[in-house]
Amino acid sequence: MTDASPFYQTLTELGRRLRSGELSPVALTEQFLARIGALDGKLHAFRLVLRDRALAQARAAETALKAGVDLGPLQGLPYVAKDLFDVKGTPTTAGTRLRENAVALEDSAVTRRLDRAGMVLLGKTHTVQFAYGGVGINTDQGTPHNPWHAVAHAPGGSSSGTGVAVAAGMTPWGLGTDTGGSVRIPAALCGTVGLKTTVGRVSRAGVYPLSFSLDSVGPLTRSVEDAALVFQQLAGADEADETTLGVPPCEVLRELKAGVKGLRLGFAETVFFDEADPEIAKAVREAGRVLKDLGASVESIAFPEAAEAVKLNPRGLVIAAEAYAVNREYLERHFNELDPVVRERMKNGKAVPGPDYFEMTRRWSALRREANRTLAHVDALLVPTTILPPLPVAPLIAHLELYMQRNGQYLRNTAIGNILMLCALSLPCGFTGAGMPIGLMIYGKAFDEATVLRIGHAYEQATAWHDRRPELGWAQ
Amino acid sequence: MTDASPFYQTLTELGRRLRSGELSPVALTEQFLARIGALDGKLHAFRLVLRDRALAQARAAETALKAGVDLGPLQGLPYVAKDLFDVKGTPTTAGTRLRENAVALEDSAVTRRLDRAGMVLLGKTHTVQFAYGGVGINTDQGTPHNPWHAVAHAPGGSSSGTGVAVAAGMTPWGLGTDTGGSVRIPAALCGTVGLKTTVGRVSRAGVYPLSFSLDSVGPLTRSVEDAALVFQQLAGADEADETTLGVPPCEVLRELKAGVKGLRLGFAETVFFDEADPEIAKAVREAGRVLKDLGASVESIAFPEAAEAVKLNPRGLVIAAEAYAVNREYLERHFNELDPVVRERMKNGKAVPGPDYFEMTRRWSALRREANRTLAHVDALLVPTTILPPLPVAPLIAHLELYMQRNGQYLRNTAIGNILMLCALSLPCGFTGAGMPIGLMIYGKAFDEATVLRIGHAYEQATAWHDRRPELGWAQ
Repeated sequence: MTDASPFYQTLTELGRRLRSGELSPVALTEQFLARIGALDGKLHAFRLVLRDRALAQARAAETALKAGVDLGPLQGLPYVAKDLFDVKGTPTTAGTRLRENAVALEDSAVTRRLDRAGMVLLGKTHTVQFAYGGVGINTDQGTPHNPWHAVAHAPGGSSSGTGVAVAAGMTPWGLGTDTGGSVRIPAALCGTVGLKTTVGRVSRAGVYPLSFSLDSVGPLTRSVEDAALVFQQLAGADEADETTLGVPPCEVLRELKAGVKGLRLGFAETVFFDEADPEIAKAVREAGRVLKDLGASVESIAFPEAAEAVKLNPRGLVIAAEAYAVNREYLERHFNELDPVVRERMKNGKAVPGPDYFEMTRRWSALRREANRTLAHVDALLVPTTILPPLPVAPLIAHLELYMQRNGQYLRNTAIGNILMLCALSLPCGFTGAGMPIGLMIYGKAFDEATVLRIGHAYEQATAWHDRRPELGWAQ
Repeated sequence: MTDASPFYQTLTELGRRLRSGELSPVALTEQFLARIGALDGKLHAFRLVLRDRALAQARAAETALKAGVDLGPLQGLPYVAKDLFDVKGTPTTAGTRLRENAVALEDSAVTRRLDRAGMVLLGKTHTVQFAYGGVGINTDQGTPHNPWHAVAHAPGGSSSGTGVAVAAGMTPWGLGTDTGGSVRIPAALCGTVGLKTTVGRVSRAGVYPLSFSLDSVGPLTRSVEDAALVFQQLAGADEADETTLGVPPCEVLRELKAGVKGLRLGFAETVFFDEADPEIAKAVREAGRVLKDLGASVESIAFPEAAEAVKLNPRGLVIAAEAYAVNREYLERHFNELDPVVRERMKNGKAVPGPDYFEMTRRWSALRREANRTLAHVDALLVPTTILPPLPVAPLIAHLELYMQRNGQYLRNTAIGNILMLCALSLPCGFTGAGMPIGLMIYGKAFDEATVLRIGHAYEQATAWHDRRPELGWAQ
């Protein structure tokens, strides 16, 4: 690949090239479609490539740009959407063949917003069935292949296809959702940036739900600046998602490059480093050192609410109860046609008594208030996104019990943030000896996306781990 | 009683007398305590008279007033609180002997607010057990006696004691709570004003919960102006009740006397008048005519969301599930010591599956959005508060099945507003041939307490039903 190749350039770089006239939206879209064609047979990131729609959108962007119509910095740039996002005229399968005829009548709120910004939707990417799992396996529609290894390793889930597509340069960025870690885990395991937004920031209207209480929409990108750019476009009130109403607007670009001098960062020692792979723990500690050198204070802090959050999420039962309500028909009438790794966990939701469900969510609310008091003393937390690196997929499919254990391990650190209603950024902070990516997670307070992006940007500029590309000779 | 008697004067009138020096807070408190002493043996409104505390507060108010310390229009005036509100050093029994030792360590948020306004707490009033019932019966601690009849008639519940105390002139006003109608039903059945506030307006911290989703705190008063005065003091953000955070402040006194000219009022024909007692329906229609004469437009409108709300509240199961979680220990270990009219309904909450609970609350949210669209075309709705007048208590205690039926009838019109998250005012609009009070309910949009109070005030000024007093010779 020459330097002129768009596949590993950021949105900022690509946008500059489009506006200089050096590159056209149609040519860019064609290049990405060709790369998807070349790689996806092996990588299996896409459930559906929207060639015609993408080229039509690219032509429209091209015409607009030529006519001097400026829709902002994302105009003419491509993206992908996890197959939970409604796209008019295509089915939203949510990872199951049972929904192959569930054709969306309207676009989701966020794809409409991206439309208005002039973006080009290349296609829909695979998801864990019903977005319910952190490993990234889908035995029904196939598991996306982590680009960092020729042998199938966990891509992370549930936004597995988006993670793989971004990491393999098949798109500059893509949409994911995060209920227990589903943006951050594929970001960490595939070596991309992933932003878990605070519930209420981005409309979930037209997104197939997992847990209404915890679902969030967020981007997987090639750089932190790209995450900030896209977040700015995605965020905002929407009548169709009540959680977004009354949320004050945010501005994450203004202070993105302000650096970290004077910021107070904490290694959250409670839970997050327990049983972490030593290479991962080391890389995260080292990231703290880098941020300290950049002028932040970095100290170890206790975060007892993290341990409480783990205790108050036994077997993910609250999420399972909400997911059961949404997927009741599939679980009750088509149980044997569902992915075994999903149905076994989700069916437990049926048995959760209403009073227990209510009590648990009330305790979560109380716990969030306590966590906010602890977090009042720091600007952000530094922890490993996952405590395990990407592991080979085959044994996890073959042994359900092993899958359950690993799934719990992958989700542990990320799910804490969903329960505590925090925002978080995962970004590459190194590689294992075996060459697999490691994710640093920066946790921020609710609605403080600006701070985690600012810290992530400073770190990324100082280290450039995100520039490393997987060797994909084996995939072509 | 002479005109100088304080017992049926409004807070406005009493406040004027205190400030003119004609009456002192201590003398006023002593007069009310004496009246409670004379009447409560028969009326049974009070679970606990706080003589010492009341006199100490009255003395403090008196000293402050003399020193020229102005705490606002409520300074030195008495009130009562339903026995769900924590008052430091006294048990919050919530209507059951099982909690006779549950001594509160702190005051509730609202009694603290009233303290700061210089008010005097006379005592704690009886409630239906766990605030769970619309008839007003409490077979454990005794049922308050509706002052409008010598034979025990339903006082309405669950804020039964407050309703009786206000109606019998034992206090100028009192605190109630409303989850399905518990402020409005006793207001209607006892012939007082009752304001159901929007969840989020008034802190519930330190109030024994029934249903976190629907519980609201509101006053029962002698006039609409008094309700507005007190509401202004009760409303406001409180860190300890998350629903109050982010709610814009309100100002209900400014437009209270603006009249109803140009307001669009609707008789909500869907559900609310079905099976209503003909005398009640007639009085409510007549109230509409009065408001029309005052310059409002009054039309019949369909309100399909009301019918949906009834359907989506089968046997009050969501509330029962939340109540079960709160009262689990009593229901599981002391079932036989609980009030039969409460335990039989509440135990159903245990069997509500978590997914059903979740689904129902989600449907409520969607229904609220639809209702708001319907209500966009009117300023308020006019309906009967209850479709039945106060009925004799004895048969309802003797026959559980009859109780269940009547309880459902008393609650029907009011519970719709809780599920739809509206605010509402109930105020007297006439009397049955048997001399029992009839309540008009004015429903307003969420957080639009200002409009329902304004309409109620105009109506009250034109009719003065609220000035009628029960003949209490039989009670002394």
